[in-house]
Amino acid sequence: MANSKRELNLGLIGAGFMGKAHVFGFAIAQRVFDLPFQVVLHTLAEVNAEHAERAAGALGFQHATDDWRSMLDDPAVGVIDITAPNALHKEMALAAIAAGKHVYCEKPLAPRATDAAQMARAAATAGVRTQVGFNYLCNPMVKLARAMIEAGELGNIRSYRGVHAEDYMAHARTPFTFRHDPSGGGALADVGSHALASAEFLLGPIDSLLGDCVTVIGERPDGRGGRRRVEVDDIGRALLRFESGASGSVEANWLATGRKMQHDFEVYGDQGALVFSQERLNELHFYSVDDRTGRRGFRRIEAAPEHPPYGEFCVAPGHQIGFNELKAIEIKGYLEAIAGNRPEPFGFAAGERVQHLVELVQLSSREGGWKKVRG
Amino acid sequence: MANSKRELNLGLIGAGFMGKAHVFGFAIAQRVFDLPFQVVLHTLAEVNAEHAERAAGALGFQHATDDWRSMLDDPAVGVIDITAPNALHKEMALAAIAAGKHVYCEKPLAPRATDAAQMARAAATAGVRTQVGFNYLCNPMVKLARAMIEAGELGNIRSYRGVHAEDYMAHARTPFTFRHDPSGGGALADVGSHALASAEFLLGPIDSLLGDCVTVIGERPDGRGGRRRVEVDDIGRALLRFESGASGSVEANWLATGRKMQHDFEVYGDQGALVFSQERLNELHFYSVDDRTGRRGFRRIEAAPEHPPYGEFCVAPGHQIGFNELKAIEIKGYLEAIAGNRPEPFGFAAGERVQHLVELVQLSSREGGWKKVRG
Amino acid sequence: MANSKRELNLGLIGAGFMGKAHVFGFAIAQRVFDLPFQVVLHTLAEVNAEHAERAAGALGFQHATDDWRSMLDDPAVGVIDITAPNALHKEMALAAIAAGKHVYCEKPLAPRATDAAQMARAAATAGVRTQVGFNYLCNPMVKLARAMIEAGELGNIRSYRGVHAEDYMAHARTPFTFRHDPSGGGALADVGSHALASAEFLLGPIDSLLGDCVTVIGERPDGRGGRRRVEVDDIGRALLRFESGASGSVEANWLATGRKMQHDFEVYGDQGALVFSQERLNELHFYSVDDRTGRRGFRRIEAAPEHPPYGEFCVAPGHQIGFNELKAIEIKGYLEAIAGNRPEPFGFAAGERVQHLVELVQLSSREGGWKKVRG
Amino acid sequence: MANSKRELNLGLIGAGFMGKAHVFGFAIAQRVFDLPFQVVLHTLAEVNAEHAERAAGALGFQHATDDWRSMLDDPAVGVIDITAPNALHKEMALAAIAAGKHVYCEKPLAPRATDAAQMARAAATAGVRTQVGFNYLCNPMVKLARAMIEAGELGNIRSYRGVHAEDYMAHARTPFTFRHDPSGGGALADVGSHALASAEFLLGPIDSLLGDCVTVIGERPDGRGGRRRVEVDDIGRALLRFESGASGSVEANWLATGRKMQHDFEVYGDQGALVFSQERLNELHFYSVDDRTGRRGFRRIEAAPEHPPYGEFCVAPGHQIGFNELKAIEIKGYLEAIAGNRPEPFGFAAGERVQHLVELVQLSSREGGWKKVRG
Repeated sequence: MANSKRELNLGLIGAGFMGKAHVFGFAIAQRVFDLPFQVVLHTLAEVNAEHAERAAGALGFQHATDDWRSMLDDPAVGVIDITAPNALHKEMALAAIAAGKHVYCEKPLAPRATDAAQMARAAATAGVRTQVGFNYLCNPMVKLARAMIEAGELGNIRSYRGVHAEDYMAHARTPFTFRHDPSGGGALADVGSHALASAEFLLGPIDSLLGDCVTVIGERPDGRGGRRRVEVDDIGRALLRFESGASGSVEANWLATGRKMQHDFEVYGDQGALVFSQERLNELHFYSVDDRTGRRGFRRIEAAPEHPPYGEFCVAPGHQIGFNELKAIEIKGYLEAIAGNRPEPFGFAAGERVQHLVELVQLSSREGGWKKVRG
Repeated sequence: MANSKRELNLGLIGAGFMGKAHVFGFAIAQRVFDLPFQVVLHTLAEVNAEHAERAAGALGFQHATDDWRSMLDDPAVGVIDITAPNALHKEMALAAIAAGKHVYCEKPLAPRATDAAQMARAAATAGVRTQVGFNYLCNPMVKLARAMIEAGELGNIRSYRGVHAEDYMAHARTPFTFRHDPSGGGALADVGSHALASAEFLLGPIDSLLGDCVTVIGERPDGRGGRRRVEVDDIGRALLRFESGASGSVEANWLATGRKMQHDFEVYGDQGALVFSQERLNELHFYSVDDRTGRRGFRRIEAAPEHPPYGEFCVAPGHQIGFNELKAIEIKGYLEAIAGNRPEPFGFAAGERVQHLVELVQLSSREGGWKKVRG
Repeated sequence: MANSKRELNLGLIGAGFMGKAHVFGFAIAQRVFDLPFQVVLHTLAEVNAEHAERAAGALGFQHATDDWRSMLDDPAVGVIDITAPNALHKEMALAAIAAGKHVYCEKPLAPRATDAAQMARAAATAGVRTQVGFNYLCNPMVKLARAMIEAGELGNIRSYRGVHAEDYMAHARTPFTFRHDPSGGGALADVGSHALASAEFLLGPIDSLLGDCVTVIGERPDGRGGRRRVEVDDIGRALLRFESGASGSVEANWLATGRKMQHDFEVYGDQGALVFSQERLNELHFYSVDDRTGRRGFRRIEAAPEHPPYGEFCVAPGHQIGFNELKAIEIKGYLEAIAGNRPEPFGFAAGERVQHLVELVQLSSREGGWKKVRG
Repeated sequence: MANSKRELNLGLIGAGFMGKAHVFGFAIAQRVFDLPFQVVLHTLAEVNAEHAERAAGALGFQHATDDWRSMLDDPAVGVIDITAPNALHKEMALAAIAAGKHVYCEKPLAPRATDAAQMARAAATAGVRTQVGFNYLCNPMVKLARAMIEAGELGNIRSYRGVHAEDYMAHARTPFTFRHDPSGGGALADVGSHALASAEFLLGPIDSLLGDCVTVIGERPDGRGGRRRVEVDDIGRALLRFESGASGSVEANWLATGRKMQHDFEVYGDQGALVFSQERLNELHFYSVDDRTGRRGFRRIEAAPEHPPYGEFCVAPGHQIGFNELKAIEIKGYLEAIAGNRPEPFGFAAGERVQHLVELVQLSSREGGWKKVRG
């Protein structure tokens, strides 16, 4: 059967877990959404030819290469998807942008906000569309939360409590990895970035913040029989003041034993409140003073077709979506932005913003005192 | 890239919601599992040619037809997937079996257990592999529950409480549909079948049962301005005795206002207990008397890579899978059965068994008294 | 300070745990409620004089006796409170009634409904006020549930699911006690009576029922080195039809490993639903179709001063009451009934009614078939 | 019946809600515990004679007075219980201490830490026993949490998250009260003191902190038709460093719409974690890495007799205690301290410590920068 849609050829760099997850997300997105493009898995680039060939076969790509730059020269390739190690993001993205490609890049965009800013400027100048992976924001229940806040269902927002806590670094014997690299590593950069992104997604821009970063496990095995000193934060906390006048706090923690995905927030307005936990990602809890006395309480709203785009995945409430479908929603938004139908959901400028916030928390922790967020 | 796997050509009958869900399930399964076949979306059959063409294009099928029988004559087609209206299941399945095709059929297999039995016998005689859609059983947490019970982690199982309650028929103004058809309709057949299947999946064969069926909304709009009498049950309940000696109960209810997917069970053994709710399908709650005094309690186990095949979908705990991924797991099991690597996960014989249980509850309700389940 | 209230002298029979709990309940009730009487702890009766003296001192009674009948001759004593072993309830209550005393008796009222009926008739004839301990019904959240049902907030009630499950008899090595006595023992009588009482409290009279009783642990240590056969039910289940037309089920289970107080119910109407668990006794979960689409969900109502008589105990929501305060509420209701200000909250006739239901479930289990509840 | 215990005569100042709650607590404590004293409700002092007489009658006191100082001259009175307005605490407590009375004082001990310190020193010098009302610490589940932490069941504690949020000041139209007084008012003093006390109760002394206080509702009705400016915090937050090396945060919030008693904490160690919410005060959630892989999860421990002194109130798990029983536990501890059987559970020195922490958060908020807690 002919499909009359425009094709968009994807060039993927990296076939690790995240690369696979992206391919999975594209596959889901194409099955459930009426996308503006027919995405074609065109070329997969990996560090050596054999690996690239094998991964391309397994994932369904038409071509394989051990030279990611070769994809930039291929006019057929429309979008470059970077899931390579973080340290390479900047070089790859700048090259792809220079070649006029749209660029989809896993988070973190770059180790430093200044790098991220350079990437965002380059993309803006080149007029290409970019996307950074921040899929928690794609959850229909989180979108609902934002819509309810914007519609005034909670009245004036007064306070916010956000956390992103997991325990994947809780063991002192877990070795030093790139996530511990002083340049761009730490819990705040790794998961706190999600907490900060959600805070601004829901309440708007943060105006200023006061940070506190703690290194708990001072050294880790270096994977070669030795020990290596850790300088990045295991726990990062920040007190916040939003431009709206609301105040709040966030915590990033990768040592929180027992927590697997505590990406939670609580929003309190003068007319209502919202409580969300990624641990139960198909639910949003809503309290409204409009309910009558004696009948008030936090109500557990379950994801349903009336919370778009849940209905694209499941015909009825109660079926529930999972993490991979959040990725598919992210991809849909990005493809629509490429087609010019909407602004970038979370482009490089947004990625750079989060990186700026992360660094400001770190700076505040080092220097002490409130730091004004760049407007 | 060449994929050296054997191809399995799929012929799908029906492009409604469930057809789309199946295609989605195949797509997910192929992305995440190392399947024994490369499934090819070969032909889609719908009632008229135009609809078939359009759906085939949208869903990615190579061919379209308005004559499902034509697929049976095509030696290239290996498996027929039936998502057409229930009333057609039997005719289609028997024809496909006669043509030597493997058959995947949505539930309920047939309006009557005798029809289902005929279908199961035909498949057995023909030696083809069959599958009925019972995807709640595919949940890694439900599999974990069964594994724990089988391993004796709960000791001797004494009692069971199961329910499948939703509210999609709670409005008296919801019109009469095929689900209200006296032949094969009713809450017990529609959702109680899931509750009964889960009960036997976890505790083994039911030995005897005592049923009670209630019609609450005695007539419904017929969709043509008139009213139509409803004879099927809105609520069905059964008291159970398992072959193991355990006792229990199940409830099927499609009028349970507020419930979207209360497919829940509680299992009590002499050494522990399990509590599950499909409303939080990535959790299983476990109580063990092995925990020491003062530290006992139901513990909320979150789905994680150590609960296969969760790890195929998500690299870490806390990410969560959704309904569509349960479907993909179902498909994986079926394809492995076709390849001869394992028994059918839930073949026509299993589908017929559930239908038998449903009818026995109805019979017991009509006649009174305990009914012995066919061994 | 003089207290101008009429005094009501209490004669307590039995100083075991339940006797102590009653005294505690009276003490709490007097502290928080404006009761119609000043209750005086007049006389405590126990089986031997020494024990009686000691207990009277500890609990604050003015007098002690080893002859409970002596209290009946004392015109000063106004109410007899029976917390003696169940087997003695009937003899004691009938004697107290004959002496013109009001009688407060722990549940179960008597081993047999016929005995309970005799007691209820005697009380009616004598014109004394009686009370049986059914304190779960005194919970402000359960009262709220009934009020909401009566006010039509759930619309027409269609179905009910009730359970009372604990695990205090889960060990096969727990010895035979009076609770296992074929006359009046068993899980259904012990805890199922609560489940049945709650069902009727909320939905009104049960019209007919279908029962199933199971003995799981067939013999228990007799406490003297031998074994004793157990004939009573460890698990009792019943399917219900209410006079209102609603249908439902209850389960009584004292083998439910891990459950400490699963006195739960779910009520489904055509306009809303209620879900309650005694495990979180200060909450009631309410779903209403009146909430607008996309904002519906079960809302967790927390006990608050607007749910009388919670406000007598706690000045603000969130503080929570416990089991003992439920007892105090029971006592308040009884004292008001003695003062003629309200009907008996749960008098002997109500106690006999529950006993009748229990026996009918047992009869149905033995004989098979639906049994019509005595009107 | 004679009760051979030593009598302890109570002189209560104030018959408002808190006075009533104290009397209630004493009554409960005497019913359930084997106390070292027989507490006698000796004299009640209120601002005018009529009110005092009436309240004394209602609450069961032997004497009434409109001059609280008269109680200090009465050698019969052993303990003075102050539930009068906060502004009077200091004067009354110092006078009572000077008269050699033991003093039980509601929180906050005094508007300023310096006042509280003076009171604590006076008590120490006089050798009388003191108690400040901090009853959340008396919860058997909170005691269990501390015991588990001390026993090393969580390993080394790394992080802490505490909150005390309610919504009783959420309405901008709620008038200015003494709780808004710049001297000693504010959310941090009112409820944050609980959050800080719990933090130290569980993890030991706080070493330093970084504070942030926010006034959201800048003026309130003055109750006389005008408006009055509010200077105290509606929300107070602090980042914490404990002497043990753990880090954490607390939030105090009295504008948290929908929250009635969110006195919650989460404690993360390298071997386990604890999660508690006062909203479900009979539960403690415990995660342990000692559980085997695939079976780990937060386990809901329900209050039971193995968690003293729960068993004094309820003979079995699942019955649950409420707020008033926490007060009774507080009183028991205090009376045992008076008897010399244990240290003061939460004496004036402890009350002063909390006040110091509160002021340090406020100071840090005003001045910026981390503040070292007085050792």
